[in-house]
Amino acid sequence: MEVKVSRRAHFNAAHRLFRQDWTEQKNDTVFGKCNNPEYHGHNYELIVSVTGEIDKETGFVMDMKVLKELIREKVENALDHKNLNTQVPEFKHLNPTAENIAVVIWNRLRPHIDHNKRLEIVLYETPRNFVTYSG
Amino acid sequence: MEVKVSRRAHFNAAHRLFRQDWTEQKNDTVFGKCNNPEYHGHNYELIVSVTGEIDKETGFVMDMKVLKELIREKVENALDHKNLNTQVPEFKHLNPTAENIAVVIWNRLRPHIDHNKRLEIVLYETPRNFVTYSG
Amino acid sequence: MEVKVSRRAHFNAAHRLFRQDWTEQKNDTVFGKCNNPEYHGHNYELIVSVTGEIDKETGFVMDMKVLKELIREKVENALDHKNLNTQVPEFKHLNPTAENIAVVIWNRLRPHIDHNKRLEIVLYETPRNFVTYSG
Amino acid sequence: MEVKVSRRAHFNAAHRLFRQDWTEQKNDTVFGKCNNPEYHGHNYELIVSVTGEIDKETGFVMDMKVLKELIREKVENALDHKNLNTQVPEFKHLNPTAENIAVVIWNRLRPHIDHNKRLEIVLYETPRNFVTYSG
Amino acid sequence: MEVKVSRRAHFNAAHRLFRQDWTEQKNDTVFGKCNNPEYHGHNYELIVSVTGEIDKETGFVMDMKVLKELIREKVENALDHKNLNTQVPEFKHLNPTAENIAVVIWNRLRPHIDHNKRLEIVLYETPRNFVTYSG
Amino acid sequence: MEVKVSRRAHFNAAHRLFRQDWTEQKNDTVFGKCNNPEYHGHNYELIVSVTGEIDKETGFVMDMKVLKELIREKVENALDHKNLNTQVPEFKHLNPTAENIAVVIWNRLRPHIDHNKRLEIVLYETPRNFVTYSG
Repeated sequence: MEVKVSRRAHFNAAHRLFRQDWTEQKNDTVFGKCNNPEYHGHNYELIVSVTGEIDKETGFVMDMKVLKELIREKVENALDHKNLNTQVPEFKHLNPTAENIAVVIWNRLRPHIDHNKRLEIVLYETPRNFVTYSG
Repeated sequence: MEVKVSRRAHFNAAHRLFRQDWTEQKNDTVFGKCNNPEYHGHNYELIVSVTGEIDKETGFVMDMKVLKELIREKVENALDHKNLNTQVPEFKHLNPTAENIAVVIWNRLRPHIDHNKRLEIVLYETPRNFVTYSG
Repeated sequence: MEVKVSRRAHFNAAHRLFRQDWTEQKNDTVFGKCNNPEYHGHNYELIVSVTGEIDKETGFVMDMKVLKELIREKVENALDHKNLNTQVPEFKHLNPTAENIAVVIWNRLRPHIDHNKRLEIVLYETPRNFVTYSG
Repeated sequence: MEVKVSRRAHFNAAHRLFRQDWTEQKNDTVFGKCNNPEYHGHNYELIVSVTGEIDKETGFVMDMKVLKELIREKVENALDHKNLNTQVPEFKHLNPTAENIAVVIWNRLRPHIDHNKRLEIVLYETPRNFVTYSG
Repeated sequence: MEVKVSRRAHFNAAHRLFRQDWTEQKNDTVFGKCNNPEYHGHNYELIVSVTGEIDKETGFVMDMKVLKELIREKVENALDHKNLNTQVPEFKHLNPTAENIAVVIWNRLRPHIDHNKRLEIVLYETPRNFVTYSG
Repeated sequence: MEVKVSRRAHFNAAHRLFRQDWTEQKNDTVFGKCNNPEYHGHNYELIVSVTGEIDKETGFVMDMKVLKELIREKVENALDHKNLNTQVPEFKHLNPTAENIAVVIWNRLRPHIDHNKRLEIVLYETPRNFVTYSG
């Protein structure tokens, strides 16, 4: 009996979409107002899902208290109230689009999830824009 | 690295569920109060998702600004503040159930999405009733 | 100890904003696409609030089961899956704007609420547009 | 044309996570405050989804009125305002974790859904914790 | 410049509505299934609002970090994952209706809020039922 | 018949809470991680409400299309995708707390609202923190 368990979390951060190797004009054309050099920001809403067999003894796929702490330690502490471009190492040479942030979060959590279980990240940049990544 | 990007949109419309080739009684039995000949209506909430590889240069699967405009042009302009039965050509001979509206929206958007990417439509008729179609 | 108790309900309906005594052009200028002669529709979300003293015996300001039934009988049965313009008598000569619908609902419920208690109606026409009326 | 149709429902219940064959200390370690012997409770939000072909005649995968009644009869009547541990037979010897409740609901509904259609249960224990089970 | 600042919190609890001095039949008539002797439960959502002048120096009416900790200490620690009837002293002889719970929470917080500021409690028992108390 | 009409809008922005005339240590003590010198950000959700008499002819307190455009021009264009501290003139010498942002928005809109009508601003900094200002 395989079940997907999901935990919602959130963090607030500033970011800017641009490439240093592009001209200002090309950055403006592609990234529009997301390329504001003074940054803008979001309340990111995050859903972390782990899929696996129910443990017969506990009735858990994974203890939500453990998952909650893992998200706090590996994601919230690293990203909350941060400037993604300047204060999060993965984005030193990677554009912090919602897609790339979801991949970064997946990579941060994957080593800490039982290797028999699958991991999925849903990341809301705004209530109207969100992305899903499953590895 | 395949990611699903999703954009939420909405439109308001009137509709009526019925078949012209059925008796009034059969329509009432099957469609109940949704068969009101004077119509009723909904705030339809729409989630359009496109799945594909992240573009290495931009960090985008698809530019959300482009997807937003596509939804506006192909879906919102055609369906918003309309009577689906009488003012939207696809429903001239097709019952505007949530299922069929989702298929119509998918068909309207599919030609404009890169053929290497997958398209999914989630359509909320009410906060409690919704449908998902992926082609 | 005065408390406000609130109950959420909902109904779906078609409507059209226009005045029969105005020209088509003036209706279009003032009401825009809400003046579609074939109607459009909404999922109306309704919050009915009653304010009064807590009954010492029951701990209730008003029994929510009673309020729920009252809303069902006086509001939902009358408006749900209806065309407000053609099937609800109050709108025969009254434009069914959100403001006027809220007043109509307040007038329908007021006689059935204890006269020592206050009544407030919040009506969402869409998740982004809503109105509040307290008599 | 295969479509997934989804219906949201809800019920309120009390529960306690523990195993009678474990020591009090082990129960506390594993289940923490969810092991309160006097129980705690939740507003469970439920999404029941049925996937299958659209019926050409009606435009429905499944009549939502029928699904709504099925959920009411098989799930809400059995679980709403109940103590899951003491008043729902399936949990006599099964820990009422969100995972197990989702499986129990799936098992209650599965015999009543057309065998050519697939069934999925999403169960929110809180707005931040939820599980998905598809059989 | 008077502003109302609001902080949302939540707790889960079991409860039962009944009066020991009433017959079983009267309890059933008045409280219906909320009178289940084995209890049921809710995810209570809480909005605590404090109204006062903006402090010219900080730009705060009240530091949200302080309010958040106050709610945690005085409300969440006392009510979360508890049986309101048997484990919260205020309800030993008081029916734990939403109205009474809101008053209890207001009384717990009031002594810790600056006496020049006003306090308001909104308590959601379910997404459809909620109450407001301002002292 | 006085009614309050409300319109929801939103904007994304970066900000930092601090006072230039305070030591770094005092800023850290009072504003904590909100004092990150590299900024962080939010999806601000805004509810603008106007209270007044229903116009007998139109059935409107205020045309929502006009209010929507006013919010776009005076608030969204000025604040969306901006760094509040460095790119919005009002915050050159004013800490951009939620309280102060709400007052700034109220001041921007007030001159454009009929002087017989009242104006209220609700500003969500996150889904859990929000403020209300009515002048």
